[in-house]
Amino acid sequence: MVQQSERSEFRARYRIESPEPIRKAADVIAGEQSSGTFLALAGETEELKRRSRARVTRIDPLPPVHEPSLRSAWAERRGHAGVFQRGEVEIAFPIDNVGANLSSLMATVAGNLFELGEVTGLRLLDIDLPPDYVARFPGPRFGVEGTRRMAGIQGRPLIGTIIKPSIGLTPAQTAELVDSLCAADIDFIKDDELLADPPYAPFGERLDAVMPVLRRHADRLGRMPVYAINISGSVDEMLRRHDLVVRAGGTCVMVSVNWVGLAAVEHLRRHAEVPIHGHRNGWGAFTRCPELGMDFAAYQKLWRLAGVDQLHVNGLRSKFWEPDDSVITSARACLAPFGGTTPIMPVFSSGQWAGQAPELYARLASVDLMHLAGGGIIGHPQGTAAGVASMREAWEAAVAGVDLVDYARQRPALAAAIAKFGEAA
Amino acid sequence: MVQQSERSEFRARYRIESPEPIRKAADVIAGEQSSGTFLALAGETEELKRRSRARVTRIDPLPPVHEPSLRSAWAERRGHAGVFQRGEVEIAFPIDNVGANLSSLMATVAGNLFELGEVTGLRLLDIDLPPDYVARFPGPRFGVEGTRRMAGIQGRPLIGTIIKPSIGLTPAQTAELVDSLCAADIDFIKDDELLADPPYAPFGERLDAVMPVLRRHADRLGRMPVYAINISGSVDEMLRRHDLVVRAGGTCVMVSVNWVGLAAVEHLRRHAEVPIHGHRNGWGAFTRCPELGMDFAAYQKLWRLAGVDQLHVNGLRSKFWEPDDSVITSARACLAPFGGTTPIMPVFSSGQWAGQAPELYARLASVDLMHLAGGGIIGHPQGTAAGVASMREAWEAAVAGVDLVDYARQRPALAAAIAKFGEAA
Repeated sequence: MVQQSERSEFRARYRIESPEPIRKAADVIAGEQSSGTFLALAGETEELKRRSRARVTRIDPLPPVHEPSLRSAWAERRGHAGVFQRGEVEIAFPIDNVGANLSSLMATVAGNLFELGEVTGLRLLDIDLPPDYVARFPGPRFGVEGTRRMAGIQGRPLIGTIIKPSIGLTPAQTAELVDSLCAADIDFIKDDELLADPPYAPFGERLDAVMPVLRRHADRLGRMPVYAINISGSVDEMLRRHDLVVRAGGTCVMVSVNWVGLAAVEHLRRHAEVPIHGHRNGWGAFTRCPELGMDFAAYQKLWRLAGVDQLHVNGLRSKFWEPDDSVITSARACLAPFGGTTPIMPVFSSGQWAGQAPELYARLASVDLMHLAGGGIIGHPQGTAAGVASMREAWEAAVAGVDLVDYARQRPALAAAIAKFGEAA
Repeated sequence: MVQQSERSEFRARYRIESPEPIRKAADVIAGEQSSGTFLALAGETEELKRRSRARVTRIDPLPPVHEPSLRSAWAERRGHAGVFQRGEVEIAFPIDNVGANLSSLMATVAGNLFELGEVTGLRLLDIDLPPDYVARFPGPRFGVEGTRRMAGIQGRPLIGTIIKPSIGLTPAQTAELVDSLCAADIDFIKDDELLADPPYAPFGERLDAVMPVLRRHADRLGRMPVYAINISGSVDEMLRRHDLVVRAGGTCVMVSVNWVGLAAVEHLRRHAEVPIHGHRNGWGAFTRCPELGMDFAAYQKLWRLAGVDQLHVNGLRSKFWEPDDSVITSARACLAPFGGTTPIMPVFSSGQWAGQAPELYARLASVDLMHLAGGGIIGHPQGTAAGVASMREAWEAAVAGVDLVDYARQRPALAAAIAKFGEAA
């Protein structure tokens, strides 16, 4: 119909599983997530449907399964058993159903549809928004380019670490650790996500202890080492903490994106003068069940709309569950174009040390990333400076296409890292 | 140890599955979520550990399984296969690790632990916070009692409905529908979660169209029909919209809690003068995989901490996936004590009509609930007023312990509902 093709739409792609034919399940989702209900209603005119109704634009069948991936009491009551159809479907939603409203966008593409009795599997794979719609959201203010500019690092990954032990250090102990990390010429330091404003190390005291150390090293280095201090908290606290960071010369703030939430991150973004380091802790709960939740492809777009500049993607051969292929796919998504927004920095961490650099570079074909090692830097046998040096040397080797062990022959820091962490990996 | 028992702690209970012994997996989680990392570090003194370390306080083994519920590339690299242990574990965290910070609490009980390679299943079952800790969060301002007071309804459930079609109605059409619902003596009306501020029905115009209708009926009824208008959006928009609602005499605001997020809901709660109707759309993605995500028991506590007054729990024999037992358990959780906070209103909806009242009352043993029917009211064969009447009559029968069909003999509205919806159920 002409009216449909003239509507401005955005699209969402799902993998679904259902005891019903996939076409029917997809129609239920499209109806439920736009103008439908379980009865034909007086107000639901043809004109309203034409304007508001989502439409199924594509169905790619997949092989069926014989056990439901997820339980549906609704399907059980109807005696559904035996075969469960699977398919990838694409649904187009009118932009005017939603407007430039992140929570409405989420309610539409990731809302009650996960609850539908008709689905025994439903995963949001990706979303596709036209650029003029994307432009109505804040989007990242800094992204890769701005992160590099604030850090004063070009042409190589930002090498970083996490304050460890995760929690328990006093402000003075934190400052001491930051001092040793800066003395080691590190590019980037972040708080652990567990730490924000505990009574033993209140935010203000921690900031006051750390910032003079950073500024002192900035004078020496000619660039400010980036400290992503965790400002996660209430909306007012986050803005106040952001302002304290900026006033003290800080160049980054970190938030636990899932737990402060989309509206708070968007609010912070509209206010923020420094890049927002997006920590995705809790993400595993959204994605580890393959027939539920969502793919990172969709997830990172949502946080890009809200305005995150850096986003975690785990690491190769990490201590986490995620297969390496999935990690690489996530990092590529962060660096891929999305509706005119600036690419954002993928942040690799968990069980990282110099050893992952060659494969990471070979697979990502980019140095636009942050490579964070905890014990891999702080636990280096020759000390923190050697830990940082080993990471940088590994990236030099990776970019030059030189074998890591060969490159380590004249470089004791890298050699010691390989000797210690290579065996553990 | 004395130091440990003197610490103030909160607890989280999980069901975990692991290729490792459950004790070891639990220790990994406790370490990872407090002061641990993968190497022993210089700063990790015994004193720091004593102060900061989470501890495993209980392990209840469950029968093992022979296939992992969730994939772990980490476990695969180590050749783990064959048997995966399961158990329920309880972990105690020092309150001082976190403070009164919702996002830090979440990062602690529901953060990176979902990603750990050591777990092939992890579900947060419940959290237990001491009352003096709970008191440091906002908590619901209204809850059951305040919701009843604002609605002017005592001693029976609030009968309500959802504006349908979900989206597409103009402000004038919405007002017309609200008028007919109020004329039918309805207690409660809510927006669909898909609708907030679309260009075809901007929030302000919708409010301006609807509020005079509500006020007019309030004069007639001696109570203001509650309209939970969806204010979901940016932080500033939500506060502004809340203020518009209050100024216009409104008595409720609705938000999509998962998608505006914890910090925004907490922010709204500190500002709000009317109850917050918590819509949990998206919740299915957090809970439908039995070995991932979280139980509603934990979820509702988090939103109670943030300050939600009403929270959706699905409905008996709904069109959603959820088994009825789970729905009842959720509703009981909302009504159960939690650290001195006021109980909140469970909101039943989806595929509801008069017919669910007797079982709902028999199982919940309470009328402290909101019972929402969409088509079950608006689609009643004798019209909306008969739809509302049928719901109320069904609850009268339920509370009196009279058989629904008997009760319907002298009550045409209820009889017609049974005739129409009883067959479809």
